[in-house]
Amino acid sequence: MSSEFGTNIKVSVFGESHGAAIGAVIDGLPAGEEINEQELLAFMARRAPGAALTTPRKEADFPRFVSGVYKGKTTGSPVCVMIENTNVKSSDYEKMSAIPRPGHADFTAFAKYSGNADMRGGGHFSGRLTAPICAVGGIALQILKRRGILINASIVEIGGATADKMQEVFEGLNGDSVGGLIECCATGIPAGLGGGMFGLESKLSYALFGIPGVKGVEFGSGFAGSRKKGSENNDAFCVKDEKIFTETNNHGGLLGGITTGMPLVFRIALKPTPSIALEQDSVDLNTLENVKLKIEGRHDPCIAIRAVPVAEAVCALVLLDEMV
Amino acid sequence: MSSEFGTNIKVSVFGESHGAAIGAVIDGLPAGEEINEQELLAFMARRAPGAALTTPRKEADFPRFVSGVYKGKTTGSPVCVMIENTNVKSSDYEKMSAIPRPGHADFTAFAKYSGNADMRGGGHFSGRLTAPICAVGGIALQILKRRGILINASIVEIGGATADKMQEVFEGLNGDSVGGLIECCATGIPAGLGGGMFGLESKLSYALFGIPGVKGVEFGSGFAGSRKKGSENNDAFCVKDEKIFTETNNHGGLLGGITTGMPLVFRIALKPTPSIALEQDSVDLNTLENVKLKIEGRHDPCIAIRAVPVAEAVCALVLLDEMV
Amino acid sequence: MSSEFGTNIKVSVFGESHGAAIGAVIDGLPAGEEINEQELLAFMARRAPGAALTTPRKEADFPRFVSGVYKGKTTGSPVCVMIENTNVKSSDYEKMSAIPRPGHADFTAFAKYSGNADMRGGGHFSGRLTAPICAVGGIALQILKRRGILINASIVEIGGATADKMQEVFEGLNGDSVGGLIECCATGIPAGLGGGMFGLESKLSYALFGIPGVKGVEFGSGFAGSRKKGSENNDAFCVKDEKIFTETNNHGGLLGGITTGMPLVFRIALKPTPSIALEQDSVDLNTLENVKLKIEGRHDPCIAIRAVPVAEAVCALVLLDEMV
Amino acid sequence: MSSEFGTNIKVSVFGESHGAAIGAVIDGLPAGEEINEQELLAFMARRAPGAALTTPRKEADFPRFVSGVYKGKTTGSPVCVMIENTNVKSSDYEKMSAIPRPGHADFTAFAKYSGNADMRGGGHFSGRLTAPICAVGGIALQILKRRGILINASIVEIGGATADKMQEVFEGLNGDSVGGLIECCATGIPAGLGGGMFGLESKLSYALFGIPGVKGVEFGSGFAGSRKKGSENNDAFCVKDEKIFTETNNHGGLLGGITTGMPLVFRIALKPTPSIALEQDSVDLNTLENVKLKIEGRHDPCIAIRAVPVAEAVCALVLLDEMV
Repeated sequence: MSSEFGTNIKVSVFGESHGAAIGAVIDGLPAGEEINEQELLAFMARRAPGAALTTPRKEADFPRFVSGVYKGKTTGSPVCVMIENTNVKSSDYEKMSAIPRPGHADFTAFAKYSGNADMRGGGHFSGRLTAPICAVGGIALQILKRRGILINASIVEIGGATADKMQEVFEGLNGDSVGGLIECCATGIPAGLGGGMFGLESKLSYALFGIPGVKGVEFGSGFAGSRKKGSENNDAFCVKDEKIFTETNNHGGLLGGITTGMPLVFRIALKPTPSIALEQDSVDLNTLENVKLKIEGRHDPCIAIRAVPVAEAVCALVLLDEMV
Repeated sequence: MSSEFGTNIKVSVFGESHGAAIGAVIDGLPAGEEINEQELLAFMARRAPGAALTTPRKEADFPRFVSGVYKGKTTGSPVCVMIENTNVKSSDYEKMSAIPRPGHADFTAFAKYSGNADMRGGGHFSGRLTAPICAVGGIALQILKRRGILINASIVEIGGATADKMQEVFEGLNGDSVGGLIECCATGIPAGLGGGMFGLESKLSYALFGIPGVKGVEFGSGFAGSRKKGSENNDAFCVKDEKIFTETNNHGGLLGGITTGMPLVFRIALKPTPSIALEQDSVDLNTLENVKLKIEGRHDPCIAIRAVPVAEAVCALVLLDEMV
Repeated sequence: MSSEFGTNIKVSVFGESHGAAIGAVIDGLPAGEEINEQELLAFMARRAPGAALTTPRKEADFPRFVSGVYKGKTTGSPVCVMIENTNVKSSDYEKMSAIPRPGHADFTAFAKYSGNADMRGGGHFSGRLTAPICAVGGIALQILKRRGILINASIVEIGGATADKMQEVFEGLNGDSVGGLIECCATGIPAGLGGGMFGLESKLSYALFGIPGVKGVEFGSGFAGSRKKGSENNDAFCVKDEKIFTETNNHGGLLGGITTGMPLVFRIALKPTPSIALEQDSVDLNTLENVKLKIEGRHDPCIAIRAVPVAEAVCALVLLDEMV
Repeated sequence: MSSEFGTNIKVSVFGESHGAAIGAVIDGLPAGEEINEQELLAFMARRAPGAALTTPRKEADFPRFVSGVYKGKTTGSPVCVMIENTNVKSSDYEKMSAIPRPGHADFTAFAKYSGNADMRGGGHFSGRLTAPICAVGGIALQILKRRGILINASIVEIGGATADKMQEVFEGLNGDSVGGLIECCATGIPAGLGGGMFGLESKLSYALFGIPGVKGVEFGSGFAGSRKKGSENNDAFCVKDEKIFTETNNHGGLLGGITTGMPLVFRIALKPTPSIALEQDSVDLNTLENVKLKIEGRHDPCIAIRAVPVAEAVCALVLLDEMV
């Protein structure tokens, strides 16, 4: 029931898509960590709309650090980052309020909040809320990089096709949308992080399922591994130059919820963008009648694309939480 | 870093496979809830070994409620359930201590706990630790049933084959093992449970990844949904007899982390049992030499089978946590 | 190690006294609760400086709700309140940075954050951080009032004298300061709130000790009760008009961490304002030499006075957390 | 609403006074820590009844470690300690069930748990529940001692008299009881532990108010400090041999919720034992009539005495939580 994750490093996300601002508070970052602002903006730009193949809406997602940063370094007290919603055009959305969009949280927010939620543009459920996660996750990525940990995510599938077919897939959409699959890999992690019965898979999946549209999370061979034999899926240990490793990585860097020192590998399944240009069936919550719905405005044909840096951000935040 | 999950209903799991006892403390159960002991034992028996197709080891997993239950009802104070480890035969395992078994937590526990973990029989990482989860989850199932919520899980795939081929799959194993896929479905849930940016998927996956061997979790159409178009994956709303519902359920009962009132559906991917009878490559942690490993003893050919009631137990505990 | 409290209603406080802004995120407020802005500003004004007997510094503590409020009501998603630091004059403070002020967190922040904390004006440890607590606590007070719960705190002692002697006490200070004692009383609370071994006293004290300067918390007869006999301190139960109550209230409305339905009564001890005009002994953290310190600027002669509404705010937030 | 405290080291307490057993699970202890069993039993004996001046009831509070300890050392997985309730005589108590004892949790437990709580002997609210806290806290004390941190608590007041008058105070009681004041001091703590707006006072007080009967907590000069002037209460910093310290310790080792390196000093106020031999007024919860109540059995004349090691245990657990 909360918009927060983390134990020693807590991230609390706030804001609605068309409200005054969105942002996050991150509490527990180590003090004295330099923030490379250019690197951070470049990282956040990967998530921003307007890039090729994403929605042409223009958002000035400029993060303002209102606390916890002094002389370019973290102070040790909570960092609050704010992103003003400067370019809000609610007219596209407001008339829909009584008709829940299929695949969106409109209906469930209505059920839970009795019509009080500010659902303009998706409200607190909007993918826009991942911008502040990228802002604070970008700091975590910089801290981890200085400790030798690199995190990289990429699209591996678009609408069931390999990622190199993306352009073709998009050209055939005609207002429809597709889902996608992201793979994230983190290297340089020491063995022995995580643990407890509810270990690193638990913590990572908790945060990853907070990314709007994520409907599946798997580690290492994941679902494919459930179709294998033990002799195929087990990763044999071997030693070379006094270093223990595995040549295969079906375990995805985690055994018993604890890192093995091998690359951490997970994949997240993003559903197709629910907002499509095609006419859909829905209901009018006021009159309780079946109605037709046509969503106006332009939308990302595939939300997975912009979720790539978000996966990296979340991974960095969860890993750093284990290391402070 | 903990063996606990839950917010208002916290479950804390303790014990090692070959230690004195295993158990769990559940704090936050409502007071005055009757416990049907026969029903609970029958539920736990589904997880117990010795059933057809599972390991023939015999464990007397009899739960002893040492607190929180009085005159057959919950008191409102923490319930501690204990299961004595009466049938421990460590000899099969103890000699392996310096040679980590591929696919097990032996190596990571060594890395994390510097050799102090009691890893006999898998220690705290053993699938045996799911017995107390079933004990306390069985209580949650009974409470939910009285509120009209029914939870049912089943095997849907064994080693990549449909579940009805289980017998054939097992007959061809010759000491090898297979993974499996479990689907869990909960009905009778009201719309509006969960929520926050980190909603019910987050809470469920956190707990589900604590089940030993789980490497993937998906809700509704999950990974398959990521290969679909929006027009295929969106579930249209419709109304009949003043009740709003969706005819399809690709969303798995959850939109925006909040229940829609449709059945909650998730699947978990279990890796193949890592303990197999075939010789494997490993290393000697003391001498840092590559060695051959042959695991003695009998093991479940597929850990997914006994994880079925565990999935139900975890689902019940997480749902009840949202309802108190 | 965190700037957050609460279980179902979490309050996360951020900001530094002379940074860009201070604020708080409150996650978990029920949806649809009206916010009376005039009432809220009036409540916050009680904490603001510039009132009689407090420091003449002028802060425009105007709360800006950047999320979670829509059409004057709570939306159910996190409420972020921001207060810009518009009137920052750091010059009074900045030269002190190497010389920790006795009674302040300067030295401990240096020890913990290795000199990276932004300690201008007290930084994150400043009493100014109680302004956002009043902003979100003021909302909680309004919600509780609608449910029949009234909370009222007042000064009961100033520098050891009864509160009516305040003017005299202050006139004799000559640049020195005094501590104070606040009593808070909440009425209309139903019996049965709280509980667990770590009950309402635990939750209240956790939050109350976060108010800068609080060094003691007691419930009911508290420390005085420890000097009594059982026959004097026990509150006899009696019944009248089918209502059970106690005529005395040494238990302060709490037995076993659970509310009895009698008024909740607690007192908090505030230390004297550490910033005084008199010369004090301190050390230079750079040269490790003993030095004399004279703190410039004007300060509250007694921080307890402005902490009165903060006590009410904290009480409301903790009580509401138990009721959602 | 829970019987748990701690962040990285979580302590979950379970059991009822006259149930099958009481105990605690402690999750997060570092691995490889030796447990000196004799030292632990000696520590627990200080809390046990039967010592001079405490109740003559005999409880065999022998702790059984059922998990998390292997070959005399912590394994890193959760430690569960069980204490069987071998000597339960419920007859003294059972007939009282409809008549709440003044000063006890009988009435509030009834209000909260609708009569389902097992209140025999005080149930989950009994002082007996501090035995498992001493068991796990005793381990924490041993760990801290190896790191140079020593914790010592003692009675400083009994019924308002100094502790050396204890014998006299008790002789004049005639079935009545008295409260008491405990002071706890911890030395060897490095500067820089704790922090955040809700720092070490918050965490300590949260746990301390869980000790049955505690109604007040103060740090350093505490309530007395609120009656002082700033010039009297501030602790001047000085330096000698390159070490910074304060000659006085009104701050009790904590400034801004962070340790200064000076001794941590706090006091807790224990109310008089509510069970007294004198006749008291109460009500019958069934008939809603005013009745007279006379409590049979023997009780501690002052619960503060046996709470002394509990204060040390709690202090150790909270400090260790900050250090792992």
